[in-house]
Amino acid sequence: MIRTHEAGTLRKGQAGQKVTLAGWVARRRDHGGVVFIDLRDASGSAQVVFREEDHAHDLRAEYCVRVTGEVRTRPEGNENPDLPTGEIEVVASEVEVLSESAPLPFPIEGGSGVSEEARLRYRYLDIRRQQVAHALRTRSQATYLANEVMREHGFVYVETPALTRSTPEGARDFLVPVRLQPGSWYALPQSPQLFKQLLMVSGLERYYQLARCFRDEDLRADRQPEFTQIDIEMSFVDQDDVIALGEALIGRIWKETLGYELPVPLPRMTYAEAMARYGSDKPDLRFGVELTDLTGYFADTAFRVFQAPYVGAVVMPGGASQTRRELDAWQEWAKSRGARGLAYVLVQEDGTLGGPVAKNLSETELAGLAGRTGARPGDAVFFAAGAPAASRDLLGAARLEIGRRCGLIDESRWSFLWIVDAPMFEEDGEGGWTPVHHPFTAPRPEWADNFQDHPGEALAYAYDMVCNGMEIGGGSIRIHRAEMQQRVFDVLGISKEEAESKFGWLLEAFKYGPPPHGGIAYGWDRVCMLLAGGESIRDVIAFPKTASGYDPLTGAPSPITVEQRKEAGVDAAPKGDRSGADAAPRS
Amino acid sequence: MIRTHEAGTLRKGQAGQKVTLAGWVARRRDHGGVVFIDLRDASGSAQVVFREEDHAHDLRAEYCVRVTGEVRTRPEGNENPDLPTGEIEVVASEVEVLSESAPLPFPIEGGSGVSEEARLRYRYLDIRRQQVAHALRTRSQATYLANEVMREHGFVYVETPALTRSTPEGARDFLVPVRLQPGSWYALPQSPQLFKQLLMVSGLERYYQLARCFRDEDLRADRQPEFTQIDIEMSFVDQDDVIALGEALIGRIWKETLGYELPVPLPRMTYAEAMARYGSDKPDLRFGVELTDLTGYFADTAFRVFQAPYVGAVVMPGGASQTRRELDAWQEWAKSRGARGLAYVLVQEDGTLGGPVAKNLSETELAGLAGRTGARPGDAVFFAAGAPAASRDLLGAARLEIGRRCGLIDESRWSFLWIVDAPMFEEDGEGGWTPVHHPFTAPRPEWADNFQDHPGEALAYAYDMVCNGMEIGGGSIRIHRAEMQQRVFDVLGISKEEAESKFGWLLEAFKYGPPPHGGIAYGWDRVCMLLAGGESIRDVIAFPKTASGYDPLTGAPSPITVEQRKEAGVDAAPKGDRSGADAAPRS
Repeated sequence: MIRTHEAGTLRKGQAGQKVTLAGWVARRRDHGGVVFIDLRDASGSAQVVFREEDHAHDLRAEYCVRVTGEVRTRPEGNENPDLPTGEIEVVASEVEVLSESAPLPFPIEGGSGVSEEARLRYRYLDIRRQQVAHALRTRSQATYLANEVMREHGFVYVETPALTRSTPEGARDFLVPVRLQPGSWYALPQSPQLFKQLLMVSGLERYYQLARCFRDEDLRADRQPEFTQIDIEMSFVDQDDVIALGEALIGRIWKETLGYELPVPLPRMTYAEAMARYGSDKPDLRFGVELTDLTGYFADTAFRVFQAPYVGAVVMPGGASQTRRELDAWQEWAKSRGARGLAYVLVQEDGTLGGPVAKNLSETELAGLAGRTGARPGDAVFFAAGAPAASRDLLGAARLEIGRRCGLIDESRWSFLWIVDAPMFEEDGEGGWTPVHHPFTAPRPEWADNFQDHPGEALAYAYDMVCNGMEIGGGSIRIHRAEMQQRVFDVLGISKEEAESKFGWLLEAFKYGPPPHGGIAYGWDRVCMLLAGGESIRDVIAFPKTASGYDPLTGAPSPITVEQRKEAGVDAAPKGDRSGADAAPRS
Repeated sequence: MIRTHEAGTLRKGQAGQKVTLAGWVARRRDHGGVVFIDLRDASGSAQVVFREEDHAHDLRAEYCVRVTGEVRTRPEGNENPDLPTGEIEVVASEVEVLSESAPLPFPIEGGSGVSEEARLRYRYLDIRRQQVAHALRTRSQATYLANEVMREHGFVYVETPALTRSTPEGARDFLVPVRLQPGSWYALPQSPQLFKQLLMVSGLERYYQLARCFRDEDLRADRQPEFTQIDIEMSFVDQDDVIALGEALIGRIWKETLGYELPVPLPRMTYAEAMARYGSDKPDLRFGVELTDLTGYFADTAFRVFQAPYVGAVVMPGGASQTRRELDAWQEWAKSRGARGLAYVLVQEDGTLGGPVAKNLSETELAGLAGRTGARPGDAVFFAAGAPAASRDLLGAARLEIGRRCGLIDESRWSFLWIVDAPMFEEDGEGGWTPVHHPFTAPRPEWADNFQDHPGEALAYAYDMVCNGMEIGGGSIRIHRAEMQQRVFDVLGISKEEAESKFGWLLEAFKYGPPPHGGIAYGWDRVCMLLAGGESIRDVIAFPKTASGYDPLTGAPSPITVEQRKEAGVDAAPKGDRSGADAAPRS
């Protein structure tokens, strides 16, 4: 090492020692012939004093320097109690500029309000900022902890291929032309799902990987085309085993990084209950405000809007005092989510109900409403009526918006829970069924024999871990019997030929004594974002891309040359008999 | 868990206990009404006894079963001392077939001679075989140990992008069309080299990653289009620091997995010495047999072939007794390596020299040759003459071949060493220079000021770790000064424009106070292959591809559909002003 000490580690006890430090010039203050510099390295910073001004003459912000000097206790009254090294300073006797810095595009220290474009373009400078470096260090710490937990539980770390075959999952695959087999393409994996199930067939029993995944989705605000998941699969297990492991993993990480003790076993809530009470399959339980089902209450209503298969409500505390403009804004908010509006009544201080809906309701309906919904004088009651799923979804979103606008969310709290017993299937809108998870998800044991007779009611043996209203992990017990898998395909309307074409190699593997198995995957970017207290997964990704998939730092993606295109075989015709669409596996 | 115990863990002390096991039917033996089955799971296997034959009637090889029964001590004389569970057996009272198995394409137990094509196509069955599973478990153990060492040394685990910009390294990039930016392509990284250097500019100081890398090379026997490296970079370090870390990492892994104590500090050998003595920059020191430089010895020779800038020799012990056919085979061997042949003399038992070359040498030359080369009666001496590099390369390969053919290599030994002080540049065959490592490699300190004046002699501050004749890791101290980097580009004939176009974003980052830094990368597949005692990196890759990049299991790569092609934007023209070749970064 070209230094003897790390700047942030110096303490009073080292006074009198000669030390050599190396790092960056963070702050500079000139005081009549004496120059003070904060020297920053990865460990923190220390104040360096230059008595002879000429030594420090050339030192500008973010120069990389090496300084030799003597540690001394700061003169009384000059201590900085906010700094771990605040009791000492280093009196420089030698200084060497290791490299200079051009004027900075934005300040490293104390700066804020820098555009994200600039931060990403100069990401290497952005990472010098304490909060950004801290987020990446937290992610690293969490990764080490995950390795530790999985190792203790006997998991085998297996790397699965990144260059593989296109699989029929929800999103689109990224494709890679293959120069050595012109006309053929690899696909980048959306997840190691099929490979991890194959590893169970192979008898490894406990698989784990920090897996890079790729989804060519239309990018939403906080998505990245590549992301990381902690991918786990286990044999001979039941739902409780996977859940216990997930709690051990997340528990260790939260405890070691934040000192938070996860209250295990975490509460479990059924999907049906979560939808009914919170209008969400990932409810944020850091605040109350639950949905009220009013379908029965309005069963005989004369109000046409409420003559619907579902009527529900959610209360906004203090919402009756909103201005007309604020109430109109709720309508716009609802419309932006695809609803026709958000009906409401306002509970006046005297208990009477106002707002446009009130006059459509009968005396009786009005009289019991506040009591039924729990609304108090001064509150607003929002309604949704229509199809149950869409209505609950709207009320669930309104609930979150109420929580935010009314400051009901306790940001210091952690709310963890499991959502279990999700439906196996949902209607695909064309008279058929589509899997809620994926087609290899097993039914709950009590639905094992007859899920095919009641596809709308059958429950999956699946579980999602929810934290603060975000799904951070999800998994299921998988189907390992060909006969059951066939019944699922039948419900989904997948023919034998289609199944063979899409999942042929997995189905073939399942002919050879597959064990009962299940697993889970954690969205690692999201877990680390929560740990680091960030607002975007970009905060915990060293070199993230913008929402359009562009990297302002490297300029990726970029056009390729004619030679690259030719050499990569982009335009080659596939080999004769393999030229058809959806070629069968191993043709 | 659907079992109470793991089969391989049962011992005598558990006799009398009721246990439930789950695993695979490995072997079945019928003995008049009593059926014995070896039940295998990830922990090992245990013998299960079925007294009532009908219980075991349906159990065939590789059925996945659950068995409940009582542990009992085996009857005296029936113990199997080769098996950890050999003192007990489980008397089954219940059995449940969890899943059946079709007839196997090859036997799991005891089978050998299975084609690699079949093994890869049914990889999930191949992995059930003990030695294959063991190799993957060894890799997993090594990965956990690597994490442990790097964590202890304060490294920050950072994931760098897989979807990035095409970089100008030696091999070709795999390309990925970008649907959301039609006409633009990502490239998959050949290594995280540029990103890890950016992380040093960012001040993280110690970076580490288990990094997936991609190289679209013409596939040689033991290459894969994707591979893994343990990627490391450190700031404020010198060569000795990186070397010490590498020894700590490899030392821990060898000790914990194999019980082998790495003799640290490992020997270091200069590149020049390795080439002179072993004709290789990755010498296998598990056996002797060194090259002899005879250039001076033959300085005045009349033999035209030896009137060359370099003449060298290597001795084959006992080689004089080779048949004519064997000696001819050496000529073919040399020709297959691009040489014209392999001159030799045979030292007869009486000390006289035979073979075709002998008659071209003078009395004096003949008289001293055996002494000079160390050849004894019965040995053969092989010669190479010509350009030093090519000649040493040939002799170095001959040395390895001699080691193999003569059984000189002690397979039980480990030979680790560092090769240091490689040349910075080598001639590119067109009158110019090309970097031996990469253009960011720093010169050794004593060459810092004048490497540009002697590019053929200047030494790089680079180091490779060699194990048993294989390079397993390599790295260097990097250039962090713009002025020095410019001199390297000048030697390489890289213009400012070309440098800007190829490395612009790294060069820009280096304007902002880059620290001195260096690093190393270990070829993880190769390290794990050595640990597992494999002969191919395919042995330690769960789902490897064939030499042509084909995966017999999934059928990847495969043709894509017209719709996929259209949607991926494969044929879209790039946007107007970015359509040129080698578009500048961030245009």
